[in-house]
Amino acid sequence: MEHSGAIADRAEKVVARCKRLASITETPGSTCRTFLSIAMRECYRVVGDWMEAAGAQVTIDAAGNLRAFYPAAQTNTSRLLLGSHLDTVPNAGAYDGVLGVVLAISLLETLEDRKLPFAIEVIGFSEEEGIRFGAPFIGSRALAGKLDNELLNRMDTKGVSVRTAIENFGLKPADISQAALSNDSLAYLEFHIEQGPILESLGIPLGVVEGIAGQTRGEFTFLGRANHAGTTPMNLRHDAMSAAAEWILEVERVARREKGLAATVGRIAATPNAANVVAGQVRLSLDVRHKSNDVRSRAADFLAVQAQEIAHRRGLTLERKILLNQPAVSMDPFLMDQIEQAAAKTGCKTHRMVSGAGHDAMILAEKTPTAMIFLRTPGGISHHPSESVSVEDVAKAMECGMHLLTQLAGSGEFQKRMVRA
Amino acid sequence: MEHSGAIADRAEKVVARCKRLASITETPGSTCRTFLSIAMRECYRVVGDWMEAAGAQVTIDAAGNLRAFYPAAQTNTSRLLLGSHLDTVPNAGAYDGVLGVVLAISLLETLEDRKLPFAIEVIGFSEEEGIRFGAPFIGSRALAGKLDNELLNRMDTKGVSVRTAIENFGLKPADISQAALSNDSLAYLEFHIEQGPILESLGIPLGVVEGIAGQTRGEFTFLGRANHAGTTPMNLRHDAMSAAAEWILEVERVARREKGLAATVGRIAATPNAANVVAGQVRLSLDVRHKSNDVRSRAADFLAVQAQEIAHRRGLTLERKILLNQPAVSMDPFLMDQIEQAAAKTGCKTHRMVSGAGHDAMILAEKTPTAMIFLRTPGGISHHPSESVSVEDVAKAMECGMHLLTQLAGSGEFQKRMVRA
Repeated sequence: MEHSGAIADRAEKVVARCKRLASITETPGSTCRTFLSIAMRECYRVVGDWMEAAGAQVTIDAAGNLRAFYPAAQTNTSRLLLGSHLDTVPNAGAYDGVLGVVLAISLLETLEDRKLPFAIEVIGFSEEEGIRFGAPFIGSRALAGKLDNELLNRMDTKGVSVRTAIENFGLKPADISQAALSNDSLAYLEFHIEQGPILESLGIPLGVVEGIAGQTRGEFTFLGRANHAGTTPMNLRHDAMSAAAEWILEVERVARREKGLAATVGRIAATPNAANVVAGQVRLSLDVRHKSNDVRSRAADFLAVQAQEIAHRRGLTLERKILLNQPAVSMDPFLMDQIEQAAAKTGCKTHRMVSGAGHDAMILAEKTPTAMIFLRTPGGISHHPSESVSVEDVAKAMECGMHLLTQLAGSGEFQKRMVRA
Repeated sequence: MEHSGAIADRAEKVVARCKRLASITETPGSTCRTFLSIAMRECYRVVGDWMEAAGAQVTIDAAGNLRAFYPAAQTNTSRLLLGSHLDTVPNAGAYDGVLGVVLAISLLETLEDRKLPFAIEVIGFSEEEGIRFGAPFIGSRALAGKLDNELLNRMDTKGVSVRTAIENFGLKPADISQAALSNDSLAYLEFHIEQGPILESLGIPLGVVEGIAGQTRGEFTFLGRANHAGTTPMNLRHDAMSAAAEWILEVERVARREKGLAATVGRIAATPNAANVVAGQVRLSLDVRHKSNDVRSRAADFLAVQAQEIAHRRGLTLERKILLNQPAVSMDPFLMDQIEQAAAKTGCKTHRMVSGAGHDAMILAEKTPTAMIFLRTPGGISHHPSESVSVEDVAKAMECGMHLLTQLAGSGEFQKRMVRA
């Protein structure tokens, strides 16, 4: 193992590289890189150079994922996948996604051309955020064999389909099936910033993700009666705004009383939305997440009943739509144990936690044993230019990753998986 | 007095005329007439013809008000003003404003050239709704001598000022001072639909307005912290949406416990307003109305304190702005009594009530004794194509108006006012 000074230097370099990539953007003055944009091509050129310099063979698959293959000591062995996504939200920070790719490349560099019993493939996914096409995980879905025609035909706001975007980038949609994970995949491992405040609040640098929460998303509309704010006495109103307010507080109350449950009303639209008119209609989003599908479903169902009760009691009607019902995903127990052992060797405490956010790991987990390591996120701030990560935490993550590679290379159980694969 | 069949015919004609004017619009398919638009010119041509046919001399003053002078039995006597506004909101009904002008013309017609001891001026105000320039009462402000340079320089969305709109209509802004009420004004009387549900809920056709409620308008902004809806536990949130919801319910609670108080949050805007982001900021409108300035001010102050308390308890900050603080206006007690006597002669019950909406009468009341008569509004529906009024109620209002003219013509006190004027 390298001494801590060398690891600190590598961590500094990781952070500097993330900052450099943040300057490659399609919107001058802020960071934004969407699926296969011109900025993405430049990003791939820079990251691809780092990958090649680390001893990997670099390709771009037909779903636009940047893939670097670092061979094993022997040919015809299996591969360990490391990666995250290279696209960003608008007005992004420098670390969401990017850190996981850059850190993986840095791990290859620590090998200094030394080969392991398995190959390593570092993947920079082309799309995770869902910005350009309103549908996330285009890159990782291709690896899971789930980039279907419906998604390929989806249009961006300029009327360009995913398929056309792929062609315009010089790639062949017909080859997408070749992007799917091969049978020689051992496991997928993703480093990612937490994007939340939990590790910081516990004073712990690294989190071991045990699962990715399931999500229910819905749209609730309270339909009352628009009326003049001056001429309609309080007792003759059917105010959609007050009904909505009552339900928003109910959403908060239900989430607070169940450990680990998150329920959010983040979007609201009132009609006619005028200061002097009692709202006739208010539309609200609902987002419910929990590691247990049962807890999540029960909460979402209960909130629907409560919305109906509030509407009925106030003489309003309710419309509701469920937009998403995505089950929770579990991470691989063997890999979680290995990560904890590796972290323990660095003298670093870890915390087992549920990821409330979706990640590429969620898609990959359907096809291969998967694990995620979270890095503490100062202030829990993400999807914002002030998103940050400390060099010390990156160094701990690097050191943990190096121990992990060593462990896996010497692990009987991991060897067995390789034989199976 | 005419027999009831003749009055019913006149009422039918009033309703038919209102419907005809609703077809004169600047937006095909729905009714919309804003200040001095091309549709307004056509409206003036039609209404002006009716006025002339009723024996009045018709002019348009420099603020664009359509004015019809019906002379008295003798020259150099005072005048009674009757009127309302001819502009509309977008997607309007046929009666808001228009009914008061058409009904006044119909009252002139009932005189059949018979002259009273006072002249009558029927005014169709050019602007009451505040649609084109975002500032209401352009027409009646000119009569009150309050159409100032600030208002004249105000721009519509196309960059056309009130002043230029007046010039484009062929009028001279320099002559606006001549539109002001002359000293010979005895009183102003306005018929108007209630635009609310109170008379209907009481089963009474006519309301006698005793005052126009004062209004406080404000803008309240809860500033929390935008955070990922999946990664931010409930106990670490500073959710502006929940804080706003708590306050919206408080606004409703405060208004419900004080008789005659109306308090409304009609407008809401959340930032970033995304389903998967805890709201970082929510901006809300507040509209508070009551006939007592004291009750209104205390309610508005209390709600500001409550907003501050909610923000503080939840770890948010609050910004607030007061946008309008308009005192209540009282109607003239002598005229209210006269209206009630006139209505009693028709066998019609009346109800003394506060107008929660602003009206031209509010502006005129600063300069001359003023009264308003409300007509029951089915469903309380106004500012909508389904706005309506029953022919029977219009007939009652007509009959009440005819008695009122007779009473005022024979009233000692009204005569004294005329001598003073």
